[in-house]
Amino acid sequence: MAKVLVEVSARHLHLTQEHVETLFGKEHQLTPLKWLSQPKMFAAEETVTLVTPKTSIENVRVLGPARNYTQVEISRTDAIRFGLEPPIRDSDEINLDGTPGIRIIGDKGELKLEKGVIMSWRHLHVSNNQALELGVTDGQVVKIKIDGERGLIFENVLVRVHSDFSSAVHLDTDEGNAAGIKGSVIGELIVEKNQLC
Amino acid sequence: MAKVLVEVSARHLHLTQEHVETLFGKEHQLTPLKWLSQPKMFAAEETVTLVTPKTSIENVRVLGPARNYTQVEISRTDAIRFGLEPPIRDSDEINLDGTPGIRIIGDKGELKLEKGVIMSWRHLHVSNNQALELGVTDGQVVKIKIDGERGLIFENVLVRVHSDFSSAVHLDTDEGNAAGIKGSVIGELIVEKNQLC
Repeated sequence: MAKVLVEVSARHLHLTQEHVETLFGKEHQLTPLKWLSQPKMFAAEETVTLVTPKTSIENVRVLGPARNYTQVEISRTDAIRFGLEPPIRDSDEINLDGTPGIRIIGDKGELKLEKGVIMSWRHLHVSNNQALELGVTDGQVVKIKIDGERGLIFENVLVRVHSDFSSAVHLDTDEGNAAGIKGSVIGELIVEKNQLC
Repeated sequence: MAKVLVEVSARHLHLTQEHVETLFGKEHQLTPLKWLSQPKMFAAEETVTLVTPKTSIENVRVLGPARNYTQVEISRTDAIRFGLEPPIRDSDEINLDGTPGIRIIGDKGELKLEKGVIMSWRHLHVSNNQALELGVTDGQVVKIKIDGERGLIFENVLVRVHSDFSSAVHLDTDEGNAAGIKGSVIGELIVEKNQLC
């Protein structure tokens, strides 16, 4: 059975360059703090405070580089704290219709996002070559098995193929905690023929 | 395949009668707010604030009736917020050695618990008759399959058999959120022979 890296993404957001400037000042550029497993992607030094009528959460990490849409990715635990009901969406696709908004506060300014809060559909990133090796295709769903005290098998893991991607499963913190993952682990990829979503 | 009720337990605590009185006043008795699926067990009207050097969380529900030990059950998301590293333990067994403590504040007083914070080992409660019907024994581990958008199979689910129990799987909020469970759902019990933990 194929082994794949499994990583946990804490709550984070992607910003347009316009929103970067609203929050951090005119002509501000996001500053890489730590490079991520996906090429060119980084955790930025910049953080924000997310605010809803129910609560606020500080120190939420911005991921870079700037994108052509602003999107906030939170866990369901976060969603309940915020009093929001975001849908589960493919975080690599721009589909923010019907998603709730949120207030975002940065060092130099703030903005009221009208929509853009999602919970991420758990997914496996792979490059074209890795997809061939693993026998998976873009848009397919697979299963990922995690061993240990809180061992489990995640079903309905979305495969995303892209020339830039490096092989890694991305879970949110609820999923990572439910599986007892600290940091990252190696999981087993289970590919079934004619698997139903 | 057998169907079982799957319920999600939010963070909560059990108190000794002595601690009930420390927190809520001399001769105070816990007041049932809502009866739970397990006979005689209730969510009490009483709530507390849990405090660590890193943060505090208000409105944490006390479960009744009073027990002969005080135990706080939190999710790993909570543990990270609190800056604690509690172990995963069978929540029905008194085994608090090596667990962290926490400060507990009630309406009329507070106490510093030296140990007693755990994350609950996901488990299936069954009565003796239900155990026979389902073909499971006390201490065995089984799997529980949850369907839906965030479908998954929980492995290493501990079976607890007791004459008083009513059939229900108990998960914490991380596990419930990872599986997309809102309230409670019906899951499928998977029993394997010679299953390894």
